[in-house]
Amino acid sequence: MTGYTVADYLLDRLHELGVDRVFGVPGDYTLALLDHVVAHPGVAWTGCANELNAGYAADGYARIRGLGAVMTTFGVGELSALNAVAGAFAEHVPLVEIVGSPATGSQAAQRIVHHSLGDGVFTHFLDMHAGVTCARAALTPDDATAEIDRVLCTVRDERLPGYLVVPAEVAVAEVDPPDAPLPAAPPETDQEVLSRFTEAAGRLLDAHPDGPVAVLGGLLVHRFGATSVLENLVAAGGLRYATTLWGKSLLDESDPLFAGVYSGAAGDQDARRTVEDAAVTVLAGVQFTDLNSGFFSQHLDRARTVEIDAEMSSVGDELFAPLRLVDALQALVPLVTAIAGGRVPAELGDPAATGATGSTGGPATGGSGRGDATAHRSPAAGTATDDDAADAAPLGQQTLWDTVAAALRTGDIVLADQGTSFYGMATHRLPRGVTFLGQPLWASIGYTLPALLGATLAAPGRRGVLLIGDGAAQMTVQELGTLFALGVPAVVLVVDNDGYTVERAIHGPKQPYNDIPRWDWSRAGDFFGPGRPSRSSRVTTVGALREALAAAEGSTDTVTVIQAAVPPLDVPPLLTSIAQAAALANSRR
Amino acid sequence: MTGYTVADYLLDRLHELGVDRVFGVPGDYTLALLDHVVAHPGVAWTGCANELNAGYAADGYARIRGLGAVMTTFGVGELSALNAVAGAFAEHVPLVEIVGSPATGSQAAQRIVHHSLGDGVFTHFLDMHAGVTCARAALTPDDATAEIDRVLCTVRDERLPGYLVVPAEVAVAEVDPPDAPLPAAPPETDQEVLSRFTEAAGRLLDAHPDGPVAVLGGLLVHRFGATSVLENLVAAGGLRYATTLWGKSLLDESDPLFAGVYSGAAGDQDARRTVEDAAVTVLAGVQFTDLNSGFFSQHLDRARTVEIDAEMSSVGDELFAPLRLVDALQALVPLVTAIAGGRVPAELGDPAATGATGSTGGPATGGSGRGDATAHRSPAAGTATDDDAADAAPLGQQTLWDTVAAALRTGDIVLADQGTSFYGMATHRLPRGVTFLGQPLWASIGYTLPALLGATLAAPGRRGVLLIGDGAAQMTVQELGTLFALGVPAVVLVVDNDGYTVERAIHGPKQPYNDIPRWDWSRAGDFFGPGRPSRSSRVTTVGALREALAAAEGSTDTVTVIQAAVPPLDVPPLLTSIAQAAALANSRR
Repeated sequence: MTGYTVADYLLDRLHELGVDRVFGVPGDYTLALLDHVVAHPGVAWTGCANELNAGYAADGYARIRGLGAVMTTFGVGELSALNAVAGAFAEHVPLVEIVGSPATGSQAAQRIVHHSLGDGVFTHFLDMHAGVTCARAALTPDDATAEIDRVLCTVRDERLPGYLVVPAEVAVAEVDPPDAPLPAAPPETDQEVLSRFTEAAGRLLDAHPDGPVAVLGGLLVHRFGATSVLENLVAAGGLRYATTLWGKSLLDESDPLFAGVYSGAAGDQDARRTVEDAAVTVLAGVQFTDLNSGFFSQHLDRARTVEIDAEMSSVGDELFAPLRLVDALQALVPLVTAIAGGRVPAELGDPAATGATGSTGGPATGGSGRGDATAHRSPAAGTATDDDAADAAPLGQQTLWDTVAAALRTGDIVLADQGTSFYGMATHRLPRGVTFLGQPLWASIGYTLPALLGATLAAPGRRGVLLIGDGAAQMTVQELGTLFALGVPAVVLVVDNDGYTVERAIHGPKQPYNDIPRWDWSRAGDFFGPGRPSRSSRVTTVGALREALAAAEGSTDTVTVIQAAVPPLDVPPLLTSIAQAAALANSRR
Repeated sequence: MTGYTVADYLLDRLHELGVDRVFGVPGDYTLALLDHVVAHPGVAWTGCANELNAGYAADGYARIRGLGAVMTTFGVGELSALNAVAGAFAEHVPLVEIVGSPATGSQAAQRIVHHSLGDGVFTHFLDMHAGVTCARAALTPDDATAEIDRVLCTVRDERLPGYLVVPAEVAVAEVDPPDAPLPAAPPETDQEVLSRFTEAAGRLLDAHPDGPVAVLGGLLVHRFGATSVLENLVAAGGLRYATTLWGKSLLDESDPLFAGVYSGAAGDQDARRTVEDAAVTVLAGVQFTDLNSGFFSQHLDRARTVEIDAEMSSVGDELFAPLRLVDALQALVPLVTAIAGGRVPAELGDPAATGATGSTGGPATGGSGRGDATAHRSPAAGTATDDDAADAAPLGQQTLWDTVAAALRTGDIVLADQGTSFYGMATHRLPRGVTFLGQPLWASIGYTLPALLGATLAAPGRRGVLLIGDGAAQMTVQELGTLFALGVPAVVLVVDNDGYTVERAIHGPKQPYNDIPRWDWSRAGDFFGPGRPSRSSRVTTVGALREALAAAEGSTDTVTVIQAAVPPLDVPPLLTSIAQAAALANSRR
């Protein structure tokens, strides 16, 4: 009797992978597991208000921390969380779902127990996870440690969710502790393939000696841990770069070499020209999705493109595999270093002259290059009269996001829900060191509110700034209670536009199905956090919003809820463009 | 160009089956469908705050109305609703899930579109529904009407959920309207089998000429439309009867022939004796589950049992199939009529003497037979001093449910969430004509709050009374907004016991994972229903609760939220018994 259990083993392995917190909701099949979670010296428990929210929180945590874990009970809990797990799969988030199930004996006897379908079959829910997880196991005392290792290593290496079922009594079965760290990921890169890739990339660059080389950075660079290599690449070559919407904040947006967010024909025109008109374009970890590409409006000449994917790359039409993303990117660094200085567009040749790129920005861009946003960042620059007039202006989508962008500071984690918040903010340049989180492929509205909880708990000391529409916030509102209870220093900006404006932009702008009940978000603290530090307000003007954001500055234990009223039919330009394409796609066969 | 579309066809067929309202959340893949919902003369749209809640609401509607429908978007929406659909499957609720999906062309081109997993595969989510629906179809313009009819008829006949995927452009494809009503259900009863069953049942009754015949009524009697036949059966024979927890309110609980709710060894002892000690016991539509049977503690002598299931029945060890439940029940009516009067227990022989059965009730029973509950129902009966003392008493589980039971009235729909609310209320006798809804097999906490919305909209003029723990209510709280917005006349009683008391009863009574953030439910109206009629309060004494319930009387357009404080470790006796059995089951292999 060592007292060391399957639960302890699982928690130790999670901790070894960097997890210091598990999100979830208790259920009677998980209670024995939970005793070990709360007793573990390196892993904390965060109970959420429901399982979907717990899954979202664990996803937000994983995006910051590299791996997340959510624990639910069998059936009711895991199915409530399934949307979150599927979202993690779609968006390449390493997430371990741990499900406490009825005891092995109950399952073997096919008992009709609570949280089952009543048919004596206990594999339905595991089967449902087949399409949305990269590895799955239902543990037994005999195989538990090996199966835990297998599933966790697969999650770690494939950067996708995994699924573990732990029957109630298996959780507390005794096992031996790990006698060695988890095995390292198998090498995926064939060195000979890497050599051929490097040669081919060199030939392509040599074949286009005069034009600029540009980089388009995408999500998978982050997911496969190659962000710093990509930073080295653009710095070494002095290359202009853009990111996709999905990869936003991957690279420094305050650098003059940053051309903006690329959305094909729909978005920033400077970013489009930079990416599409380069002599050679490096696509680093890019996946084009409908919302990420202006509905597939990207125009790239494959013959002049180096495409680097998770496990394979291409140069023109030549494919190279197996080749890890990080290795392919690293191989490009010396190649671009060799040509550095010769490939940067003329107007950017002198770094000292690159302070303002606003003149090359498209109409949808804002942020540091825009005069108004700059003014907001430095109120002292304007005259008192100008400020008064600007302050009194009613909020609209443009002024809303300009004002929010001006209030961001290094270290913030900005979560923008998939509606006007995402498209309104995506076109603004962020200060260096700001992380931007959204969900442009899975696009499950409401995701970001619980993800705020997870992301901020993953990074103590960083401030969370949530930008979310009122319809989306209604989906997952109960996690405000957890934010208040834990005193998470966060700003929650609820865009009050009376319903699903993202849907209005696509179809039925005045149809009743796009309306929602009106709530009073300024009372959020009264209801969800009685007796807790909180600050809630409703603002309708630029000045009031700026004041509310300023009041939130420096808070270390207070959730600030700001209800910002904007017109229901006001839509950011990028969203208008994408919504029109969506409506067209939905009407075609 | 008739202008008549697949969407119209689907809605007309739903309307034909009695559906006058569809619950859901819009998404861009469903917007074309929704245009037709809001335009339909006989079908209304109720937008919910999220899809899980919409599914629960549709389930609550279906339990009252006989069939329900929920409409969501692809991927994100349907997976959020999946727990609700699985619950409907487990609890035999006929529910049609309608999912708007990307257009057929996008699917055929394997486009990486939002709400997909990004792998170009569009069948993942349909596959996930295989285990929890009785029929599924992804519609095409060519097969849409036939497939709609097939799925809807299967749902109607099997009393289980079905699933329809409608690609965005298929929703508005033109089709011919129905030229005939949906085909009737195929006859499932073999007349020769029915004859043999009737003979066997008659022989069994004849073999036990002296003892009482008892009936145990279960959920499937309701689901398969045989409630009035069962009422006839007990009346014709003057038979004593009980119901399972799952079948609670199926039969009149105010009748002296009602013995109580049967939970095997765990529950009411009068009900147990009535069911187990009868000479012949008729099990009508009963399924024994763990929580429904005191963890399988039922003791029934199969040789003296007639068991009537959905499509098969048995007499002793003899099986009879195919035989529909309603036909088997009907066949028993003349048999028990023939012996009426001879089989009723002596103490019930004289109906006039049966006014008080309290003396035979077990310690867990309450309701009309209990002195204290009777007193609450008739305050005038007590002296002023007695009332004052009773009024000042702090609320506990016993006084809470006694007081609530006393405030119920004919026509109420009582929804009790699967925690102390369910077990506390289940042992109280309900006035005639009260419907009791719970979820004792699937047991997904939070279910009842959105189900309240659905159930009350299904039965205009009936009052909804929701009994729910604070932990459960946090799961699905956002549907309060819809209740306020629609002015649903309902009482929402939130049992404020600082967390998951049902879990504390099973394991970890003081573990932090059973704690939840404290909310101020008395501010619910301020936050969720600003400017709407509402009434919210927090009560801690019997008198204050009685006053709050009295104030809610007669309301026709107001939600009344009552936060009732009880000690965290106070547990209804029936739940204590079941929780101990659950803990034991979880610890065994």
